[in-house]
Amino acid sequence: MKKLGYVIVLAPDSFKESMTAKEVCAAMERGIQKGNPNVTCIHVPMADGGEGTMQSLVDATGGTVHTVMVTGPLGDEVEASYGISGDGCTGVLEMASASGIHLVPPAQRNPLTATTYGTGELIKACLDHGINQLLIGIGGSATNDGGAGVVQALGGKLLDAEGKELAFGGGELGRLASVDLGGFDPRLQHVKVEVACDVNNPLCGETGASQVFGPQKGATPAIIEQLDSNLRHYAEIIKQQLGKDIALYPGAGAAGGLGGGLLVFLNGTLKKGIEMVIDYTGLEEKVRQADMVWTGEGGMDFQTQYGKTPLGVAMVAKKHGKPVVALAGRIGDRIEVLYDQGIDAVFGIMPGAVSLTEALANGQQNIERTSENIVRLMTSLNK
Amino acid sequence: MKKLGYVIVLAPDSFKESMTAKEVCAAMERGIQKGNPNVTCIHVPMADGGEGTMQSLVDATGGTVHTVMVTGPLGDEVEASYGISGDGCTGVLEMASASGIHLVPPAQRNPLTATTYGTGELIKACLDHGINQLLIGIGGSATNDGGAGVVQALGGKLLDAEGKELAFGGGELGRLASVDLGGFDPRLQHVKVEVACDVNNPLCGETGASQVFGPQKGATPAIIEQLDSNLRHYAEIIKQQLGKDIALYPGAGAAGGLGGGLLVFLNGTLKKGIEMVIDYTGLEEKVRQADMVWTGEGGMDFQTQYGKTPLGVAMVAKKHGKPVVALAGRIGDRIEVLYDQGIDAVFGIMPGAVSLTEALANGQQNIERTSENIVRLMTSLNK
Repeated sequence: MKKLGYVIVLAPDSFKESMTAKEVCAAMERGIQKGNPNVTCIHVPMADGGEGTMQSLVDATGGTVHTVMVTGPLGDEVEASYGISGDGCTGVLEMASASGIHLVPPAQRNPLTATTYGTGELIKACLDHGINQLLIGIGGSATNDGGAGVVQALGGKLLDAEGKELAFGGGELGRLASVDLGGFDPRLQHVKVEVACDVNNPLCGETGASQVFGPQKGATPAIIEQLDSNLRHYAEIIKQQLGKDIALYPGAGAAGGLGGGLLVFLNGTLKKGIEMVIDYTGLEEKVRQADMVWTGEGGMDFQTQYGKTPLGVAMVAKKHGKPVVALAGRIGDRIEVLYDQGIDAVFGIMPGAVSLTEALANGQQNIERTSENIVRLMTSLNK
Repeated sequence: MKKLGYVIVLAPDSFKESMTAKEVCAAMERGIQKGNPNVTCIHVPMADGGEGTMQSLVDATGGTVHTVMVTGPLGDEVEASYGISGDGCTGVLEMASASGIHLVPPAQRNPLTATTYGTGELIKACLDHGINQLLIGIGGSATNDGGAGVVQALGGKLLDAEGKELAFGGGELGRLASVDLGGFDPRLQHVKVEVACDVNNPLCGETGASQVFGPQKGATPAIIEQLDSNLRHYAEIIKQQLGKDIALYPGAGAAGGLGGGLLVFLNGTLKKGIEMVIDYTGLEEKVRQADMVWTGEGGMDFQTQYGKTPLGVAMVAKKHGKPVVALAGRIGDRIEVLYDQGIDAVFGIMPGAVSLTEALANGQQNIERTSENIVRLMTSLNK
């Protein structure tokens, strides 16, 4: 710690409702610098493919966020955003921004009619920037349309037996007779698509999109049956006409079948969210050159072991034998299961018994103080 | 940290309303052992001369606590306690246990009549154990009697002009004509008395006991004047008959003049509380042989620099160049002033935004988890 150039990689997730991952990095570095100005910090704002992924990847690359009006899940207009990386080559978006369940009040949730059309519009907006790579997070959908809306927004035609366009929503897919991709956006042929997907559910069946995720989207048992049957028909038509079978593909059932839709229509690759982010940010190479890695998340508990950012970061760090410290706003149950998975130490950041409001409002100063003291401890041990 | 026998001295204060210092030590060690079983812990439960000092010193020596009924500040019976060290040689007591302001409801507070008689009875109870050293904490008094009650309880006679015993309280001292120590407990001649006293107020005058501490004990301006005049008279009689002038002695005004009373009648030495505790526990020798020192207190902020336990411990540690870590339930304002005074790092122990009730109830597990993670961090840096 005495030597100039001790290097710490800062790779936290966002602290939800309090700080973006970029803000967490900045607060960590302020504290670290106060504690020991000889430390060099490398900022890698992280995410796990869920909420905050677009912002973190934009921040990680010095990119830009853009806001556009798109079609919401119910067909009304909603404001949604997407990111373009600093080098202009990569578009990043979260389907929830355009087609998320949070956009629909509980009483109006209806997967029979909810569409991913807005997500398709977001993709189109990204294409307008001349990108050659697209990263898509697909958690939190209001839809069960197998990505049909995305296909429609990008110029594909989903036609019934009479050659008429299907209307929006999973309720229509049972009438699908043919797919016409003649007008499909040709720019997509030159874009590599990666989809962050942490579930393995197939498109159809007992563990499929409709059965597992339908209820939380407002579907009754009868509607679930119809949706499942419709997705099965959708997969069958796709198989016949495009030669790809997505019905049982692991992850195809993610986001109401959007996983499957992106797989077949955009030639997407399904990846674990944290792995997509680790790969894209070049985290491993940065970690390899560092002496230590810090991560963190708003809340950490035993569930953090399931694909969350701190564990993903720790796995990379441990591959290269680097110590890993995690900071958390809330340390929950059985945090000790994380120790065996590469998190060397977890520190809470709260200064005392405080309300949630205070905790969220003072996140940055709490991160800063805790970081300063960790580095002070490290420095004192090396004197 | 890898080597067997890395030694950490654990020297925390109590966490008020949550844990005794001994319990803090035990929780720290449980966490440390989980983090790295190669560490050896030396427990030195600390205190600063205030509340909790008796318990900590008893715990530091494996001693015993005893409860007795004594005369309370208002003359009624109260339950009070004192401690005897593990070797049986030292008595420890806090005057507040017998004569504290917390024993008197606000409406009944009256320094004209409140007495330290019960403190004298506690001293007597200690003498019955055959001690040769007595440590007395004197904060939080309800009294302004210059220790007159202590003198009376130990067999001294405070007589008026007619040779009659004075009644209890600072209001009587103006009538003092002579002091008769013929019946004074002879065992006191063989007992070394140390008094923990963190204030420098003299017995009388503008910065004296009555003026400064009278108001919080229920005295009106007129009563304060009377009390001050009485203490001046008390000091004058003492000077004439015993040859010692305590009127202006720094610290004589502590605890309503009990500081002065113990000085002259028990030949006591006034010491800073934290220094008394450091000396008695042999902290310095233990720190000298250790690799690191941990301390802590329920709440820490910039005021911790004024004679509180963590700073006292840090001063000893820094004399010997040892790293110092402090744990705190509440980290308050301007904690950074402590860094220049020997506290290398301060860690909060809260797991998140919690209520005060939860914080106090879960103190031990929070100390344990935080301690484990500090040691895990230290261990990871040495791999």
